[in-house]
Amino acid sequence: MPKVAYLGPAGTFTELAARQLGKDAELIPVASVTEAMDQVVSGKAERAVVPIENSIEGGVSATSDALAQMAGVQIYGEYLVPVKFDLMVRPGTKLSDIKEVLTHPVAYAQSRKWLQANVPGHTHIPAASTASAANSLATGKLADAVIAATGASKIYNLEILASDIGENKEAQTRFIEIGKAGKPQPKTGSDKTSVIVELPDDRPGGLLEMLEQFAARGVNLSRIESRPVGDRFGRYRFNIDAEGHLEDEAIAEALMGLHRFSPKVIFLGSYAKADKSSSEHQGNNTNTSYHAAKKWLDELRG
Amino acid sequence: MPKVAYLGPAGTFTELAARQLGKDAELIPVASVTEAMDQVVSGKAERAVVPIENSIEGGVSATSDALAQMAGVQIYGEYLVPVKFDLMVRPGTKLSDIKEVLTHPVAYAQSRKWLQANVPGHTHIPAASTASAANSLATGKLADAVIAATGASKIYNLEILASDIGENKEAQTRFIEIGKAGKPQPKTGSDKTSVIVELPDDRPGGLLEMLEQFAARGVNLSRIESRPVGDRFGRYRFNIDAEGHLEDEAIAEALMGLHRFSPKVIFLGSYAKADKSSSEHQGNNTNTSYHAAKKWLDELRG
Amino acid sequence: MPKVAYLGPAGTFTELAARQLGKDAELIPVASVTEAMDQVVSGKAERAVVPIENSIEGGVSATSDALAQMAGVQIYGEYLVPVKFDLMVRPGTKLSDIKEVLTHPVAYAQSRKWLQANVPGHTHIPAASTASAANSLATGKLADAVIAATGASKIYNLEILASDIGENKEAQTRFIEIGKAGKPQPKTGSDKTSVIVELPDDRPGGLLEMLEQFAARGVNLSRIESRPVGDRFGRYRFNIDAEGHLEDEAIAEALMGLHRFSPKVIFLGSYAKADKSSSEHQGNNTNTSYHAAKKWLDELRG
Amino acid sequence: MPKVAYLGPAGTFTELAARQLGKDAELIPVASVTEAMDQVVSGKAERAVVPIENSIEGGVSATSDALAQMAGVQIYGEYLVPVKFDLMVRPGTKLSDIKEVLTHPVAYAQSRKWLQANVPGHTHIPAASTASAANSLATGKLADAVIAATGASKIYNLEILASDIGENKEAQTRFIEIGKAGKPQPKTGSDKTSVIVELPDDRPGGLLEMLEQFAARGVNLSRIESRPVGDRFGRYRFNIDAEGHLEDEAIAEALMGLHRFSPKVIFLGSYAKADKSSSEHQGNNTNTSYHAAKKWLDELRG
Repeated sequence: MPKVAYLGPAGTFTELAARQLGKDAELIPVASVTEAMDQVVSGKAERAVVPIENSIEGGVSATSDALAQMAGVQIYGEYLVPVKFDLMVRPGTKLSDIKEVLTHPVAYAQSRKWLQANVPGHTHIPAASTASAANSLATGKLADAVIAATGASKIYNLEILASDIGENKEAQTRFIEIGKAGKPQPKTGSDKTSVIVELPDDRPGGLLEMLEQFAARGVNLSRIESRPVGDRFGRYRFNIDAEGHLEDEAIAEALMGLHRFSPKVIFLGSYAKADKSSSEHQGNNTNTSYHAAKKWLDELRG
Repeated sequence: MPKVAYLGPAGTFTELAARQLGKDAELIPVASVTEAMDQVVSGKAERAVVPIENSIEGGVSATSDALAQMAGVQIYGEYLVPVKFDLMVRPGTKLSDIKEVLTHPVAYAQSRKWLQANVPGHTHIPAASTASAANSLATGKLADAVIAATGASKIYNLEILASDIGENKEAQTRFIEIGKAGKPQPKTGSDKTSVIVELPDDRPGGLLEMLEQFAARGVNLSRIESRPVGDRFGRYRFNIDAEGHLEDEAIAEALMGLHRFSPKVIFLGSYAKADKSSSEHQGNNTNTSYHAAKKWLDELRG
Repeated sequence: MPKVAYLGPAGTFTELAARQLGKDAELIPVASVTEAMDQVVSGKAERAVVPIENSIEGGVSATSDALAQMAGVQIYGEYLVPVKFDLMVRPGTKLSDIKEVLTHPVAYAQSRKWLQANVPGHTHIPAASTASAANSLATGKLADAVIAATGASKIYNLEILASDIGENKEAQTRFIEIGKAGKPQPKTGSDKTSVIVELPDDRPGGLLEMLEQFAARGVNLSRIESRPVGDRFGRYRFNIDAEGHLEDEAIAEALMGLHRFSPKVIFLGSYAKADKSSSEHQGNNTNTSYHAAKKWLDELRG
Repeated sequence: MPKVAYLGPAGTFTELAARQLGKDAELIPVASVTEAMDQVVSGKAERAVVPIENSIEGGVSATSDALAQMAGVQIYGEYLVPVKFDLMVRPGTKLSDIKEVLTHPVAYAQSRKWLQANVPGHTHIPAASTASAANSLATGKLADAVIAATGASKIYNLEILASDIGENKEAQTRFIEIGKAGKPQPKTGSDKTSVIVELPDDRPGGLLEMLEQFAARGVNLSRIESRPVGDRFGRYRFNIDAEGHLEDEAIAEALMGLHRFSPKVIFLGSYAKADKSSSEHQGNNTNTSYHAAKKWLDELRG
């Protein structure tokens, strides 16, 4: 029975993601991303499951930064959980009572059509996230309703007045499965490789140069998130998901290029993509092409 | 007496920034970034002042996203406010009582030396931001102390046990001055130009291509922040600060290149840099070079 | 009756090209490329016709260099003349007498199959060009036969033993029509623009940077020929044909980029392509895209 | 006593270059570049010496093309021979008799100052090369004098009226030493690597992509010469000299990149540079950087 720490409390989407690790997993809710990762580093849990990205609100900075700062961990898998937006209120509030709707601007844009038809004359109050909106509604007197992901109703003790009111039915949150640093997962042909790359600060075109390390080997990026290094303005590191596996020569040569280029590059793992799409490199960037080139070089060198 | 809306409450760093607009400004604290911007759009205030970036914790997503979604606004200036980290407690807590310190990991790293010397044996609990740490300490039973920016003590009614304990004395927050869209500020020779650029989603190397629009004209970027467009994974827009002014031909040609390349590009303004450093383009990217090239072309065309 | 100077003598392919200028042209054979161009500069002829490139043997250095060094000329058109390779001998030589075949290696490769079938046991002697081969055969005792373009038999008084023996039936020579510098030909939608660009010598990646001036505007190159500047090793200029017309904004912006980048750029003209294929730029590099971007910029500048 | 075939006749600059191979070499003059290389392939000579480039007139196409088409050879060294320009006449012509001066335009430009002072009122007739000018003067009635390299006087039986009249005293011709394909020369730290790369013809930006293979590894090019593949217009291969040795990892990775990218790449050898300047790669492209990156990769792969 492997132990899996996850960002709690119970009832959140993270728990749904953690359940995807298997029926026999023992789930341990914890209070923060770093605490979840600490459980893994200290050996109290085999795995940790934390959110990394939301298709509406963007990257989860706490996770991005923890991956950059905690040594000894690696990503072993990813899981997607669909996000349904519901209209929630404090218990007792009726649809006709709603004057102010609190939520993240993108979630509001997603729900505007439904609200115009069903809550005419309402006002939108923007919030930093749908979760903070739910928290504010539950604890304060701000607004009359929130648009938030279904799980928030249980956490903040809110009542759902209408379900799945968003236009984009494909909104989702992505979670990662973290374990102790070790050998990457075996290659499946549908893999991604995650790295964190700090830009050198002695030249202006650093980001361009970094991206060329991938482009020169035909490696596509499915995600790129900028984060400050934190010592002063203008210094960034990038959290990157690249298509392909460490066993792919295109990835290997790109990683070596990053190692030479960057003052600090962190390999976070190669693992199967949740969407199962192919990650094989094309054209002259296949392993076949790389191996033929290496053979030719070895012959030249004699 | 111009009216200036700012992200309140009074006593925050944002108020310090807003005061830099002039002694005769009438300051109006508001509850959110979008509310501050609304005041400008609706004509209730001439200017709004909101935080855009912190050298420790990174970009302020709420501001980045509001700039992408609200039409009719423009940036007219920027202001820097130094950030000092203090050790704060609930009133009554003594230094010797402190067992757990709650704060953002980067702020913790900044203060580690002081803490090791003065609070031996403490434990660090990571928080998403220094402000949320202060909020949590004030409202709950979590932890015994926080590391936060000085202003937080007044907002959350905390007591400062030690001042300016961070190693990096240059931590600061950057604020922008927002007004109704109009003619940009005059060129000073020390200017920056802010834009938001959505990447086309029909090709893998979109970010590389976008950066080349700047690089091909010798334009350096002082800030680049990725944000999700919000409709599905893998779609990004970038909030960018480029060195130079709309009146600089290198900037003008880069902007036209972005307009041709991007499905959506938003011009946010050209304005004086807070640090007064030169923004003149060099080598073959000076206005002189551009004007000579244009004259030559006009002659060829007859 | 316009006067047209051409690289003589009569009977060469150049005369065939010059005849394409019109039935009423008065053709004037001259002894060298520069003499032909001199006729235009001095006003003795309206046009000059000279070879610029052969699909088998490459660029004609004399023409490339003359275009770089003579001021006051411009290209107004191009003409293609198919090249057929014939087996030629000194009058009296029979097929069975042939032991050594003198010709350019590429022309030899083109004719190898025919020769293996019809002149078994022969030896190939390489020559610098098919014309020099014909000249050597005619004037000396070297070899027994040459492979050369049909026109050479008349010029060097050789006898054709077999016609059109090359495998590639598409071999051809390209000629340009030169006039005094002036307004370019009108845009047809099937145009090319010729320039000569000297590379700056103060940086290693000069050629890459030059090509990026075209690539950044989606301009394809149909020809690129390196030539030494002539003052010392490692200094090059490039003779370039780009797809499109001076009236195309993609070409205009690329030319201005070259003007800023290069110590010396020479505009040689925009003119109709001989093969009539489209030269319109695609995607975000159409004139429509450029004009929309310019309009947007003008509005921003107010 | 190694046998060295060289492009004759005796008395040319090529003989001077061939003598640099050592006093005990037995020099064998031959009639063409390909004949010289044939001597090596057939084992009749150990080495061949042929011209590859002239700082005034550019690349020697016959040598470039022979290297592309003859299998089994490799470059083992290079030699520089200074070129002095002399004023030559048919025996008996006096300085005061000279009205027309025949020579290559660049050689003429080099000598213009001297001619204006010493042969006022003369006319320049351009020639394709200084050697062809000397040949024309010797055999025909064209012109009264030529400007040519010293060696031409002996070959064409001309009389030198004035020596070393060129302005640029650094004009020179570069020769290469060819042997049977084998192990490259040992690395000296001052090396060049020569390759021939055919561009793929299925994409417009082929040349840009090829150059990026070098640029991405910080490899500078000292020479790039375009040559037609010969089957149709618009298809090129490039003869390239790159700084560094096959044992340098930057060169090795660039070569493997070319092998993957190009339909045909020919390795011509790594050998010591004649000018002894350093060819060590800098910054993150040193062998130390490459080896550290490879070690890191191997550890990640476990």
